[in-house]
Amino acid sequence: KSMKTLKIGLLGLGQVGSGFYSIFEAKHKSLSQKCGAKLNLAQVAVHNLTKKRKVRFQSSLLTKNALSVVKNPEINLVIELIGGIHPAKELILTALRSGKDVITANKALLAEHGQELFREAQKNGRHLLFEASVGGGIPVIKTIREGLVGNEIDSIQAIINGTSNFILSKMTEEHLDFAEALRLARKEGFAEADPTLDIEGIDAAHKLTILASLVFGGWVPFQAIYVSGISSIRSEDIEFADEFGFKIKLLAVAKKTKSGVEAHVRPTLLSDSHVLSRVNGSNNAVLIHGDRVGDLLLCGQGAGSQPTGSAVMSDVVDIARLRASSSENPDCTISSKVLSVRNASSLLSRYYLRFHVVDRPGVLSKISFVLGEYRISISDVIQKERRDGRIVPLILLTHPTPEQSIQDAVKKIDRLAVTQGKAQVLRIEES
Amino acid sequence: KSMKTLKIGLLGLGQVGSGFYSIFEAKHKSLSQKCGAKLNLAQVAVHNLTKKRKVRFQSSLLTKNALSVVKNPEINLVIELIGGIHPAKELILTALRSGKDVITANKALLAEHGQELFREAQKNGRHLLFEASVGGGIPVIKTIREGLVGNEIDSIQAIINGTSNFILSKMTEEHLDFAEALRLARKEGFAEADPTLDIEGIDAAHKLTILASLVFGGWVPFQAIYVSGISSIRSEDIEFADEFGFKIKLLAVAKKTKSGVEAHVRPTLLSDSHVLSRVNGSNNAVLIHGDRVGDLLLCGQGAGSQPTGSAVMSDVVDIARLRASSSENPDCTISSKVLSVRNASSLLSRYYLRFHVVDRPGVLSKISFVLGEYRISISDVIQKERRDGRIVPLILLTHPTPEQSIQDAVKKIDRLAVTQGKAQVLRIEES
Repeated sequence: KSMKTLKIGLLGLGQVGSGFYSIFEAKHKSLSQKCGAKLNLAQVAVHNLTKKRKVRFQSSLLTKNALSVVKNPEINLVIELIGGIHPAKELILTALRSGKDVITANKALLAEHGQELFREAQKNGRHLLFEASVGGGIPVIKTIREGLVGNEIDSIQAIINGTSNFILSKMTEEHLDFAEALRLARKEGFAEADPTLDIEGIDAAHKLTILASLVFGGWVPFQAIYVSGISSIRSEDIEFADEFGFKIKLLAVAKKTKSGVEAHVRPTLLSDSHVLSRVNGSNNAVLIHGDRVGDLLLCGQGAGSQPTGSAVMSDVVDIARLRASSSENPDCTISSKVLSVRNASSLLSRYYLRFHVVDRPGVLSKISFVLGEYRISISDVIQKERRDGRIVPLILLTHPTPEQSIQDAVKKIDRLAVTQGKAQVLRIEES
Repeated sequence: KSMKTLKIGLLGLGQVGSGFYSIFEAKHKSLSQKCGAKLNLAQVAVHNLTKKRKVRFQSSLLTKNALSVVKNPEINLVIELIGGIHPAKELILTALRSGKDVITANKALLAEHGQELFREAQKNGRHLLFEASVGGGIPVIKTIREGLVGNEIDSIQAIINGTSNFILSKMTEEHLDFAEALRLARKEGFAEADPTLDIEGIDAAHKLTILASLVFGGWVPFQAIYVSGISSIRSEDIEFADEFGFKIKLLAVAKKTKSGVEAHVRPTLLSDSHVLSRVNGSNNAVLIHGDRVGDLLLCGQGAGSQPTGSAVMSDVVDIARLRASSSENPDCTISSKVLSVRNASSLLSRYYLRFHVVDRPGVLSKISFVLGEYRISISDVIQKERRDGRIVPLILLTHPTPEQSIQDAVKKIDRLAVTQGKAQVLRIEES
């Protein structure tokens, strides 16, 4: 019996593209058998035709014209690995409108324009798969969509930015300050020249947008996600947190509550007994809670050429399987219905507050007076080294309090004569 | 456009069956939409028609005659959740021969007769899915088969028996001895009246047979897997291991090596820095190493009515998707080619040895003399409380040594006048 052929057009041959290509070369023959369709790489669009590359190539496959690939009537599947918003968005839209399935690893694009892209996929009866957009080689999208298909997922807690996790881990393990840890991350290739997207939590929020939209069955707007990065974390915060039995992690959280969806990315104190507190280095981890399976943890390499290429490859095989059987029934989109996201300021949580105060009698009472005004109650206090008249750190942990009260109280305390600079405010996530 | 209907026959309504049924009832409508086929439960075979059940039922669905279900020409999919070898095996074979797809959670059956069952599935062009057979609600089979499809998997280390892990965790955390911890496991519903299959490692070996056969692309015979259980573990072993920075876990290991497949289940010392050393209670965890993704950890509830039912549900949706598109191309079988498994005695590893010795000068030198004869070199020693002439524990950790040498040396040492009883021999797994 004759096998169908899946003709693939690849856009981009950078980090992820070349990782995917090397896997494709090694495995496409055996996988063609497995999925019942011949996997054929028909065209590869690159920016620079003459660049020397690690991967070896039939040069006839290469083109500079990405648009010709997405319009090529021979091609059934387009893999977008060029990144960025433009022209990636237009290329994907054109591919879908030309009746091609699409695979992308582009989390920024999906987070910002996913609604439109998935709607277009649905309209054209095409698949738009995106396993590689979250968690690198960890099959988190497939697990949510297929493995846990019998579950209502009510919460996700995730460490989904390797750069930030590497920096926080080094600050914790080697007592580095932020700048030193960032330098190390750059040196070891875990941070880019401009690390803003990573350290300010934006990359994690892009990924959280995708995860939250997927599990809650509607679109969670990227703009509605509260985002705070790790650049304000000092080594003293990490040390004080440790004294109370916590680790600081850049945590992405999505929860379904009676009053709406909760979604935020922020540096967070996690108890040492919390399973995510032990995920170190550049690793990613996703903790999913389903009503039937309970807690499920996935942990692995969240970035890198080969792990991310591996995720792209699994999408290719899924497309091939679906198309081999000529199903015209794609269900792999995210509903474009917009979900309402709760304002972060209304959320209740315990908090870690670090003030720099003048070490003078009555300071604690002044601060706790203001906290009392906002009905904030304190569970723990650390005040180190008594040095009369000098500036010393004062750390308070609160009982559960609405964020708005914390922000208001801290603003007032920051204006007191006994405090210096701005307070550090970190959320404590109970397991 | 009219939807196909997938007519399901369910065999068994025990723990897993009723868990699956409650999920099916709650979700079948929304999932029918998702997978493009109407999911219809047509018949349910039970042992006792009049038994009171938690789940509510149209009594017209029930039958005592399982054979009539697997022969019912209306039914497309049979879900076997009755367990045991007979008549489960005959029912599955009949279902496959009657052109039905089959889902099973029956790990003992797959481990012992999987080769025959998968061959029959292939012959008839039918699917035989088994997500629920390993790791309860953890989607480990799907992850290996689909998520990591672009990888060569070279090793799996797994904690896949919740009962044993619960017992060892309690012995570690609460300093209980084995009998006390087993009693507690029974009380809390984590151990059955006859716990032999669990505590002697047989259940874990059944599951390892399935995992190893899946990842290495050929059949790993259950009989070829070295199995040793946890009933010989004493609380002193746990304490001494702890002093060296190790936890004791019932570890299932499958590795691909140049000289063949390595597969064994045994109580093992894991360094405190090994991620599996921190998997406690009745949890299961599978650590997979792929050539592209590196280490991937999956961790969650490995048993229980709802988590296991959730795994069955995901298989149902997969079948529905495949059949909705009338694909006649099942690839979800395990090759029945038999793989050769290396004899455990030839494997090289570090070992933990615990002797009970008469506390008398020269004892250590007598024992180390024998070890020297077998070229076994010692890395660490603990000898506690000097109590002249009394029996005290002596613990030795070795450098990497072939298991056969260890077994031979220990046999000789056990016969020395200065030792009492049989030595404890445990493998140390390097991360």
